[in-house]
Amino acid sequence: MIYLDNNATTKPFPEVVEAMTEFMTSRFWNASSAYGQLDGLEEVVESAKAAIRRLSGVAPEDEVIFTSGATESNAWAVTEGVRKAMGSGWVLSSQIEHPSVRETLEHFQEQGGVAVRWIPVTRDGAFDLGELMALIDSNLRFVSLVFAHNETGVIQPLREAAAAIRERSPGCLIHTDATQAIGKIPISFSNDLSEVDLISFSGHKFHGPKGTGGLIIRNRVLIQPMIRGGGQQNDLRSGTLNVPAIAGISVAADKCWELLQKKRHESVRAVRDHFEERICSFFTDALILGRQAPRLPNTSFFGIPGTDADDLVLALAAKEIAVSKGSACSAQSIEPSKTASLMGYNYDETSSLIRLSASNSTTSDEVCLLVDKLQELCANATSVVWT
Amino acid sequence: MIYLDNNATTKPFPEVVEAMTEFMTSRFWNASSAYGQLDGLEEVVESAKAAIRRLSGVAPEDEVIFTSGATESNAWAVTEGVRKAMGSGWVLSSQIEHPSVRETLEHFQEQGGVAVRWIPVTRDGAFDLGELMALIDSNLRFVSLVFAHNETGVIQPLREAAAAIRERSPGCLIHTDATQAIGKIPISFSNDLSEVDLISFSGHKFHGPKGTGGLIIRNRVLIQPMIRGGGQQNDLRSGTLNVPAIAGISVAADKCWELLQKKRHESVRAVRDHFEERICSFFTDALILGRQAPRLPNTSFFGIPGTDADDLVLALAAKEIAVSKGSACSAQSIEPSKTASLMGYNYDETSSLIRLSASNSTTSDEVCLLVDKLQELCANATSVVWT
Repeated sequence: MIYLDNNATTKPFPEVVEAMTEFMTSRFWNASSAYGQLDGLEEVVESAKAAIRRLSGVAPEDEVIFTSGATESNAWAVTEGVRKAMGSGWVLSSQIEHPSVRETLEHFQEQGGVAVRWIPVTRDGAFDLGELMALIDSNLRFVSLVFAHNETGVIQPLREAAAAIRERSPGCLIHTDATQAIGKIPISFSNDLSEVDLISFSGHKFHGPKGTGGLIIRNRVLIQPMIRGGGQQNDLRSGTLNVPAIAGISVAADKCWELLQKKRHESVRAVRDHFEERICSFFTDALILGRQAPRLPNTSFFGIPGTDADDLVLALAAKEIAVSKGSACSAQSIEPSKTASLMGYNYDETSSLIRLSASNSTTSDEVCLLVDKLQELCANATSVVWT
Repeated sequence: MIYLDNNATTKPFPEVVEAMTEFMTSRFWNASSAYGQLDGLEEVVESAKAAIRRLSGVAPEDEVIFTSGATESNAWAVTEGVRKAMGSGWVLSSQIEHPSVRETLEHFQEQGGVAVRWIPVTRDGAFDLGELMALIDSNLRFVSLVFAHNETGVIQPLREAAAAIRERSPGCLIHTDATQAIGKIPISFSNDLSEVDLISFSGHKFHGPKGTGGLIIRNRVLIQPMIRGGGQQNDLRSGTLNVPAIAGISVAADKCWELLQKKRHESVRAVRDHFEERICSFFTDALILGRQAPRLPNTSFFGIPGTDADDLVLALAAKEIAVSKGSACSAQSIEPSKTASLMGYNYDETSSLIRLSASNSTTSDEVCLLVDKLQELCANATSVVWT
């Protein structure tokens, strides 16, 4: 299988599987137990937190709380944000958020008691910074904005937004879903994004295990837990610590950090750019969304007008090439990308969109083979492919 | 290590680790993707649901929703239950619930809008069925009662309670946290407990992976999600499916079911009973909580009056014997078991309590060695052990 769907999920590093196996066989203890403490399981968890801090560029005093993944982290952050905005405050988000942010906000909005304003997206795939600037006032209590979009890969103008928000509404809680960015590009929240209070991340997006992610809590903000109970993790997220997965995410974070130090993301960018040049040279009318904007180096959201992405993705899967038509959550949906539609693309265009998302080990040969297969499929096209 | 703390967590079966490894290496795909579907990942998830249904004795039409574990499942069930009780209804629970039930209920109680009544526990470790019977009325909207207690192992009079509740308040949502029971004893909710609507379970309590459990939704009750987003699992629990862990819990459920068919729990009971006879013959004043009540066959919550459980548990851990002083959540707490205190034991008694919880592979030799070590420790006791 040529795997080019790394924004949906990644293959765990072999060292991640090894670490997890160790903590499922010889060191399977409950971290809260006496013998678990004697065996140093608390240190394993602390070391994982340190690895996450280094990978995301946050300070030692910033708290890392492990959850079951970014969907839970987003639900938690939004629940807390809405609680803070209840009454006279309001909430700001964008139209291109992950469903775990958007639908949680919509749920609270429907229940009443909180007002949410949704910033639109521009043609280049970024939320409309101008519109955001015009809206901010001192009653803004919670903001949730994605760091980099999972379909287009477009890196959002979060730094400018967060700075302006902090200035005009100092007490506002600022959350970002950085799930697609952490591990893929060098990030330093401490240097560039000091105003961001809450950061969601997910292990399986950077070659760690599924079922593990977290919420980074910065700037000493106080939030309530969403999942209460045994008091683990400073009472902020109860439940038996999933030490095998935490050990796994720790290894993945360390390895990704090392790859970023070696500028591996620049090689990934070169592979992606090579793909885009080739696809545009063979299909002269090919679309590439957000191509002019700052983007994740591994992502290309492209379309060959007149083709149907559903058919192509299935035909490619049958040929052992894994791509997707966008967000994995909605991969089973018959609707094309909502984000592309909000960016102003028409139905024929959005129906043709395919997402390629490379990993650190993706080669030029692999993406060239994708171009070849697309040419083949389109050349042999019946009405199934050409609409 | 002689591991006698299986109510805190269990060692995954080797076949569980193998299955997880397969889905972390060659089949790591996102279950919602086109190629994930071609590879049959949806069938893997369906097969895991079937394994859970068989192990807990529920019907094919009962829905199994995977979560990150019983703590999340309990938080979800309670959140929904409270929502249904808001306004004119009230909620019933017991004083011996797991903190994830108790603290979630207390949180909503503090926020106002919902009344919770807490059934006390009797000297034998069961919630007071008489008191419960006297309280039930038609405004009771939600009940959460544990199936078997994690410290004493006492199996609660849930069947009698649920039948009475359904009769007097037909629309009441009935939840049980069956985390400690599922996989340890033969259970058929369909035969014995048809009134129970929601059942929490956790994989790592029956030799499956940590970070995976679920909520079984029965009797076609409609509940809202707690974690929203990508729409996975019929929109009831969003988030990328943790297929490796789901494949792991599936194997664990099948293996536990097979062991129960072979009546392995009866052998476990014999080992536990042998331990209790020995401990009582050597320490004639030994306490065994709930000994006269129906109990999980693997659990013994015992105490040697005058000793300090903290010291003994640590000393045993240093000798490679893992037991605990009760609930793993509070293993780091300096307070002795609240449950034992509610059962009417005094501080000296509760301070001495140690929990032994055996697994399917625990031998008589192992528990005898525990008795020997306890004798040794008590014989050599300084003021550290003898208070």
